[in-house]
Amino acid sequence: MFRILGLDPGIALVGYSVLEYDKEKPFIKPTLIQCGVISTPSTDKLATRLKSIREDLLEIINSFKPQAAAVELIYFTKNIKTAITVAQARGVIMESLAACGIEQIAEFTPTHLKQVLFGHGKANKKEMQIVVSQVLELPCLIKPDDAADATAIALAFMRSGL
Amino acid sequence: MFRILGLDPGIALVGYSVLEYDKEKPFIKPTLIQCGVISTPSTDKLATRLKSIREDLLEIINSFKPQAAAVELIYFTKNIKTAITVAQARGVIMESLAACGIEQIAEFTPTHLKQVLFGHGKANKKEMQIVVSQVLELPCLIKPDDAADATAIALAFMRSGL
Repeated sequence: MFRILGLDPGIALVGYSVLEYDKEKPFIKPTLIQCGVISTPSTDKLATRLKSIREDLLEIINSFKPQAAAVELIYFTKNIKTAITVAQARGVIMESLAACGIEQIAEFTPTHLKQVLFGHGKANKKEMQIVVSQVLELPCLIKPDDAADATAIALAFMRSGL
Repeated sequence: MFRILGLDPGIALVGYSVLEYDKEKPFIKPTLIQCGVISTPSTDKLATRLKSIREDLLEIINSFKPQAAAVELIYFTKNIKTAITVAQARGVIMESLAACGIEQIAEFTPTHLKQVLFGHGKANKKEMQIVVSQVLELPCLIKPDDAADATAIALAFMRSGL
């Protein structure tokens, strides 16, 4: 069985999701092992928040031992200040993966992610969450959004046959 | 004696500089303990480069034991792609400082840095390097540029009386 860790970078919230599936039998439903968020308080300094993200991520990786990771790429938004803050958290995430020996790291832009899951890049957040729940045969939508997004990224990795 | 670590973030090159001075006697020339660059090859993957930056930075911190750090802030450039890449390296740098227990971290924009060293924000790179060498009474300019920039950041920290 193969375990993929999906990650949705952020500074206040990092979404994560671990999916398990059989690479030889990709038609069988993947199992959602765990998903959730790493959160850091806005009252903490940036360096402290980044340290806490790395510590929590290492704990998740050591607990679930994924063989590969898929991380959302930062798209070029109008809000450059936010993009730069998220990029700092993303740097720590990428470094943590390398530090844990995870060599296969796929990167998806939000558009590429939607193309893989829908065949086009125009689905909205809600539609994506519905598809994720349908594929995993869950009785409800995944909450919070960042955990759902991380699960979508992990699914996109699986669907890409990487 | 007080040791400050100046850092100029980047992915290919991270400039660093360790200055030592007496906080009680700021009129006495600071001593340049060490400066240089952490470099990563462009042939390596982003995650590997970030891991290598963290490892090298931890070694520098453990060797020179600075009590505080000063890190250049990323300014809002037209080249957003570069800014996002540098921000990922900066995230790893900030996390490394927190991981080493360095609590006092000052941040300088390039303009703020020039204001501290020159009294205005309009000096060019060359003028800044000349001032740095003059203050430290060095027989030549510091090379490469990233090491000189990191030294300017450390000097700005000292001059700010932080």
